[in-house]
Amino acid sequence: MEYREKNRSKDAGGEDARIIEGRNAVLEAFRSEKTIDRLLIQDGCQDGPIQTIKREARKHDTVTDFVAKERMDQISQTGRHQGVIAYAAAYEYASVEDILARAREKDEDPFLILLDDIEDPHNLGAIIRTANLAGAHGVIIPKRRAVGLTATVARTSAGTLNYTPVARVTNLGNTIEELKKEGVWFVCADMDAEPMYRQNLTGPIGLVIGSESEGVSRLVREKCDFAAAIPMKGDIDSLNASVAAGVLMYEIVRQRLGAGKR
Amino acid sequence: MEYREKNRSKDAGGEDARIIEGRNAVLEAFRSEKTIDRLLIQDGCQDGPIQTIKREARKHDTVTDFVAKERMDQISQTGRHQGVIAYAAAYEYASVEDILARAREKDEDPFLILLDDIEDPHNLGAIIRTANLAGAHGVIIPKRRAVGLTATVARTSAGTLNYTPVARVTNLGNTIEELKKEGVWFVCADMDAEPMYRQNLTGPIGLVIGSESEGVSRLVREKCDFAAAIPMKGDIDSLNASVAAGVLMYEIVRQRLGAGKR
Repeated sequence: MEYREKNRSKDAGGEDARIIEGRNAVLEAFRSEKTIDRLLIQDGCQDGPIQTIKREARKHDTVTDFVAKERMDQISQTGRHQGVIAYAAAYEYASVEDILARAREKDEDPFLILLDDIEDPHNLGAIIRTANLAGAHGVIIPKRRAVGLTATVARTSAGTLNYTPVARVTNLGNTIEELKKEGVWFVCADMDAEPMYRQNLTGPIGLVIGSESEGVSRLVREKCDFAAAIPMKGDIDSLNASVAAGVLMYEIVRQRLGAGKR
Repeated sequence: MEYREKNRSKDAGGEDARIIEGRNAVLEAFRSEKTIDRLLIQDGCQDGPIQTIKREARKHDTVTDFVAKERMDQISQTGRHQGVIAYAAAYEYASVEDILARAREKDEDPFLILLDDIEDPHNLGAIIRTANLAGAHGVIIPKRRAVGLTATVARTSAGTLNYTPVARVTNLGNTIEELKKEGVWFVCADMDAEPMYRQNLTGPIGLVIGSESEGVSRLVREKCDFAAAIPMKGDIDSLNASVAAGVLMYEIVRQRLGAGKR
């Protein structure tokens, strides 16, 4: 299996290898169009080079956090962060347009998976893997409050991250509105809704899965056309997020197989 | 959520808290009917007390391994293992009969999940959680080569280990034969079989899921009445074991809801 990993030094292991430290290194990363998942700037740093980095971050719409010096020192691997640390994506992100193009190439109705704030990299990896096997055309995740494409996600995806594009968007609600104009219908996983078996899940569809703890947020849920529940008979109230995503994706597969192409 | 954890000392953390060391402690554990997942005896130890422990292990059908002194010393937490270390189950196992009784109490056709050598405790925990929510009456695992009910399994099951019984059997094939006499049909997950949507999965059913690496073993597969596949469109050849189990369980749920009770 070929992994298109980026920015990982050979001698550093695990997630940490994605860390880029120091003003020149971070600026260079932005200018070479590396994808930066998150930027940390030390509280109170205001000088010229830091302003330049902030400008690059704004230009690239990078999530930026201001952090105390003690925390920066903890995170730093080299001890020479100079007030700035960037987390580079282990993998390339795609655009939403790339994902739609993939559906068109295959002459299939778009089948999209939207994740509202999945925080656990194992869940994100497993969902990307299932999306690949279920024949979804891509996965869309928000920039804020969600895990990005880390090395753990890549590993848990069992290599499917090489095949199934993942796009990262600033606002999931806006993306849903734009995709509706392209004829995509949105179904949201909601345990209080009608069972999924009674819903029509054929045609161009976006499946929205919520976070492990909160489910789908109200703002995103309100943008969806309808909601579907997985019937639950048990003693607790929720499935693991990657299992729930798998069960819903395969109900869509079943209905698509049964109904044929519209 | 109430956890019925056993044998865990308060100041020891994680899996290790299940270790019982020393001749008296291990013998006492057997005699007080604690469930021992696995027994380690130091190579060459043959004296009286060790023979007594071996007899108890045989009586309880406990998996026993003979291990070099160096390895025993490594595993030991107290440095006083005296040639014998036992791994106690974090949770109580049920019997297959307990599981069938549960189906009878609810006046439902038995719905059983059999796991052929799941090795990853996170997968086992997630499968127990899904079994609970899908309304399965219990989970059956083999004694050898599979993970037992460790603290990680309990945690990943999100508390459902308190509600969904797990039985451990010496030979999965024999258990299948015995359950067939009770009228249970067995379907095995096999990616080369007919798609699950075309199989009749209603009535008393046992779903057999294979290991992460090998799938369902040949001997167990041959005992099954039929096989069912999850349709795969992707670039790799398998789903995560807990996702695959969830998708298959929910196809059974769908058919049971549609067909009503037989």
